[in-house]
Amino acid sequence: MTQDFAGPPRPEVNENDISKSLDIVAVNPYHGTQDEFDGEGSSYEGDYSRSLKHTNYLVTETNADTIGWDSKNQYPPYDGQLRLDVYTHLSSGANMVEYWHWHSIHYGQETYWKGILGHDLEPGRPYQEMSKTAHELRRIGPQIADLKRTSPVGILYSSDSYWGIEFMKFSDHDNYRTILKQMYHVLYKSNAGVDFVFPDSTNFSDYKVIVVPPLYVASDALLSELVDYVRNGGHMVMAFKSGFTNEFDTVRWTTMPGPLREAAGFHYQEFSNLRQPLPLKGDPLHAGDENKVSDWAEMLTVDTAEPLAFYDHAFFGKYPAMTRNSFGKGSLTYEGTVLSDTLQTKVLLDVLQRAGVAGPDQSLPPSVRAKHGTNRNGKMVHYFLNYSSEEQSFSYPYGAGTELMTQAAVAQSQKMTVKPWDLILIEER
Amino acid sequence: MTQDFAGPPRPEVNENDISKSLDIVAVNPYHGTQDEFDGEGSSYEGDYSRSLKHTNYLVTETNADTIGWDSKNQYPPYDGQLRLDVYTHLSSGANMVEYWHWHSIHYGQETYWKGILGHDLEPGRPYQEMSKTAHELRRIGPQIADLKRTSPVGILYSSDSYWGIEFMKFSDHDNYRTILKQMYHVLYKSNAGVDFVFPDSTNFSDYKVIVVPPLYVASDALLSELVDYVRNGGHMVMAFKSGFTNEFDTVRWTTMPGPLREAAGFHYQEFSNLRQPLPLKGDPLHAGDENKVSDWAEMLTVDTAEPLAFYDHAFFGKYPAMTRNSFGKGSLTYEGTVLSDTLQTKVLLDVLQRAGVAGPDQSLPPSVRAKHGTNRNGKMVHYFLNYSSEEQSFSYPYGAGTELMTQAAVAQSQKMTVKPWDLILIEER
Amino acid sequence: MTQDFAGPPRPEVNENDISKSLDIVAVNPYHGTQDEFDGEGSSYEGDYSRSLKHTNYLVTETNADTIGWDSKNQYPPYDGQLRLDVYTHLSSGANMVEYWHWHSIHYGQETYWKGILGHDLEPGRPYQEMSKTAHELRRIGPQIADLKRTSPVGILYSSDSYWGIEFMKFSDHDNYRTILKQMYHVLYKSNAGVDFVFPDSTNFSDYKVIVVPPLYVASDALLSELVDYVRNGGHMVMAFKSGFTNEFDTVRWTTMPGPLREAAGFHYQEFSNLRQPLPLKGDPLHAGDENKVSDWAEMLTVDTAEPLAFYDHAFFGKYPAMTRNSFGKGSLTYEGTVLSDTLQTKVLLDVLQRAGVAGPDQSLPPSVRAKHGTNRNGKMVHYFLNYSSEEQSFSYPYGAGTELMTQAAVAQSQKMTVKPWDLILIEER
Repeated sequence: MTQDFAGPPRPEVNENDISKSLDIVAVNPYHGTQDEFDGEGSSYEGDYSRSLKHTNYLVTETNADTIGWDSKNQYPPYDGQLRLDVYTHLSSGANMVEYWHWHSIHYGQETYWKGILGHDLEPGRPYQEMSKTAHELRRIGPQIADLKRTSPVGILYSSDSYWGIEFMKFSDHDNYRTILKQMYHVLYKSNAGVDFVFPDSTNFSDYKVIVVPPLYVASDALLSELVDYVRNGGHMVMAFKSGFTNEFDTVRWTTMPGPLREAAGFHYQEFSNLRQPLPLKGDPLHAGDENKVSDWAEMLTVDTAEPLAFYDHAFFGKYPAMTRNSFGKGSLTYEGTVLSDTLQTKVLLDVLQRAGVAGPDQSLPPSVRAKHGTNRNGKMVHYFLNYSSEEQSFSYPYGAGTELMTQAAVAQSQKMTVKPWDLILIEER
Repeated sequence: MTQDFAGPPRPEVNENDISKSLDIVAVNPYHGTQDEFDGEGSSYEGDYSRSLKHTNYLVTETNADTIGWDSKNQYPPYDGQLRLDVYTHLSSGANMVEYWHWHSIHYGQETYWKGILGHDLEPGRPYQEMSKTAHELRRIGPQIADLKRTSPVGILYSSDSYWGIEFMKFSDHDNYRTILKQMYHVLYKSNAGVDFVFPDSTNFSDYKVIVVPPLYVASDALLSELVDYVRNGGHMVMAFKSGFTNEFDTVRWTTMPGPLREAAGFHYQEFSNLRQPLPLKGDPLHAGDENKVSDWAEMLTVDTAEPLAFYDHAFFGKYPAMTRNSFGKGSLTYEGTVLSDTLQTKVLLDVLQRAGVAGPDQSLPPSVRAKHGTNRNGKMVHYFLNYSSEEQSFSYPYGAGTELMTQAAVAQSQKMTVKPWDLILIEER
Repeated sequence: MTQDFAGPPRPEVNENDISKSLDIVAVNPYHGTQDEFDGEGSSYEGDYSRSLKHTNYLVTETNADTIGWDSKNQYPPYDGQLRLDVYTHLSSGANMVEYWHWHSIHYGQETYWKGILGHDLEPGRPYQEMSKTAHELRRIGPQIADLKRTSPVGILYSSDSYWGIEFMKFSDHDNYRTILKQMYHVLYKSNAGVDFVFPDSTNFSDYKVIVVPPLYVASDALLSELVDYVRNGGHMVMAFKSGFTNEFDTVRWTTMPGPLREAAGFHYQEFSNLRQPLPLKGDPLHAGDENKVSDWAEMLTVDTAEPLAFYDHAFFGKYPAMTRNSFGKGSLTYEGTVLSDTLQTKVLLDVLQRAGVAGPDQSLPPSVRAKHGTNRNGKMVHYFLNYSSEEQSFSYPYGAGTELMTQAAVAQSQKMTVKPWDLILIEER
């Protein structure tokens, strides 16, 4: 029994509950192509799908050629992208890649949702690339199928918080989803392995770092578990509005952030939108032009927390924009405002460093993504995928092994070159 | 018997008629805060409310802390603004200031329409400031309550004209309300005391100057009273489209401006929208970058009026954009087009000067507003309110008196300094 | 029996079928005035109306003074424009010009849809100009009425293709109509005489050049007639997507462009939208800043056609953007993408040249339009209409004759001067 989730996480659907009734999770990751192809969409949906049952999953639909319910967004993949997409799915834990459709259809809504064969039913460019990839997989499949991923970072996903914020939006352009996606984006670009966790998860302690988008709706019990996670040594990064309402979307009648106050090390009674983005005073995170926060500012007063940055503003200047509190054996880093992508990157990389989970993957070229897992034979497998039209080079940082496409031996620290829209795939010895 | 008007004047509501059944008028002036707090919104609604029954009025609701039906526009007042707002209302003629709510609520549509107490029900920053102000008023209230205001300028408000123009809009961004608000804005920034008058008012002759936003819908009787006002020595500033239709919104079948023709001293048969703003030829009002008119151009031919400015344009250049006609003992200044704020300021200040109602209030610093009235003891009371984050200084131009907050004696021409978001309040001896 | 078509061609209305039941076609060409008056709208609707029954037609309504269902777009004609508009209609083949309304009305939806008389019912500027023109026509009418036009260029109009593309739009801003209008615009500005032809027309061979906007919906029979037209010596310019679906809007299951393949000399299986406009490599048509194509790119592979230009892009660079194929005695020029106006002008003028229908009309000043026809006496009549506020001069390139307004004799190559918003009208001897 399976179900093909479309574009998860989708707040209208509780994939977490539905998955409890499934034998295996399936997902249909459709994504940008041409210059917009960067593997992020497929990895986001893949990481989420893999986290639902802590197992591998199926890709039941994905881009064959162009997609669309009209002909306004027809973007056939550049040469190499259809193949790189297959390996993107496999590296995220997919055990199958299936297309919608086999051939393009000639009438109706999905006329321009094209298949592996075009409207003329003849083999063409997409067919040739799929065929080449399929023959490769017949050869190397046994060494990469059923990849087991282990992630140091968990992202807490709360669809209730999405809805609570939607009912009382804090911005016309930002919302729960944009902050969630920003946090994921930063982790993805940093090559940090990520799982998703849920309010009813019982495995928070599996993660060195838990990242919490605005947890606007949360029961006392959930907040208490998060506090315990920190007390017991976890490192948590938490966004504004967390803890504001209980599980019934009712504002807590305690000084904020309610039950999180001791772990967070601050309190607040007031908050403000920001009409214009504000800089942080003195650019403490060295973000340059991106030294700016926006939309929302909680007027925090620290109890035991250390302020990490202050607003550069006559009135708001007395309130810290971000804090960090050491609590028990762990730490809680809090963002009282909306950070620029660069500031979010600085904050999250700093916490990864403190949690001891930073490493050589953070030094790869910007367009190269690393993914790692263990195959059926218990050997480490390393993917290096190049999402760009330019060749990329780097020093291979892991144990000696074999590049599976070429069957060439690879030594640690060996210089590797990966072609445009291509990958290197190494099995350690 | 009272009724709390929300955001008057509101064309869907005939506050003028309703007020005839009330004992006292009440109003709920909600307004911008933080950098948008300038007292104008509260003064506009206050001047209007005071004019309905020619009496003082009640403020039944106003901003306690943040307001909004979501959390997108939460702007808690800067320190000092909540107090300055109270004195803004009192200086406009309010005899009470009441808040909505006492405490912030925890569920439902007005969750973020916050009260004097926050969600935690504890005294906080807004409570402290309200408390300070209330203690002040216990002390100085008797000297400022029941302030009697006398205004040299009347603005004619016609909700029928609002609707007539809405049915046949002349612009996507300008309308009756924007022109009305522009005229009020200029008078407010110039510290000219303003009342509102209505089509059925019988006290036009109380005013040195009457300002008329586009009086698109008007009976012959009303036009005749306005003509009499000018004939008898009044100075009138009138916007385009005035007199175009009768009280049934039917276009007059006479050459325009119909019954106003003799007093206005011009006629016209045609009019045009303006695709782009046009400059006035030779910048006759010295408006610099703001020497531009827009949206509408009546193709005026003067009979006895003096043209004040011409369009700088090959075709429209032969038609005056503004005229002034001496008629009887008074004058009618006519604007055949939409003026920039600077041009409107120049026109209105010039008419104030001609009407002999200009004075030292027009020389105050830009962020300082002056309001005047007579208290119960028949003494003049002068407010100087500083709507800015910077200290302001000026020479006090009125009779010697006592500053009520400090009880210090003040001499005429004494240099006064008013702190950010603060006020000086002087009772003459 | 007649019917006043409003704004044809209008895809909701099959004017071509309706006209078969009419004695004479009537049309209501409303158009831009003031700086937007260029005669194009009236000529477009006039050329279309004349083509419906291959006869002259009636103008049953057109701009008297301003038009509009509100007062947002009131643009009375500049002096001379009302008269020039009459001659624009007559030069397109109108046999009558009638106004809506006689006098402006005082109430209701068309209050601002003004007539020859204004709201005051008195003669004014528009009346004076109409009266002058009417007296002129009483004099010269017999020499210009019933003008017979002969056009070297046909534009194929397919309302089915409009709808097929609307159902599966390729762009948010471009569609069948914008490409059709661009092609007409280029021909109009080039003073090429244009008729419209239809899918059921049997007179394709009357035209030296047939221009085909995206013929997305077409039966095999129609495509076969177009192929025959080229084979027999016609010169065709055809836009992208032509031949893609059959008469039931079903995509053909052959390699594209289906039955057009041999005449077109290329085939394609894939196509892409363009996220950003692309330049053509090396600016082969010397279009400068306008060397750009957009929105759509068919990935053409030439069989026998000559590529005219390639995309300047890493991936798309291998596909030609435009091709030309010599086929039988004619040629098919194909545009696989959306051209800038300048590129479209270069392509169409080049084809006019090749078809031998270019001439001195392509060298007139940019604001002067030439129209030609034969009057009842079999004599050639030449209109030169100046759509600008500046005087224009040119050398008269046709046979000696008489200027009808002035009755002055005119020799071939004589230098002529035409005043702003005025015309010269010559009957050959």
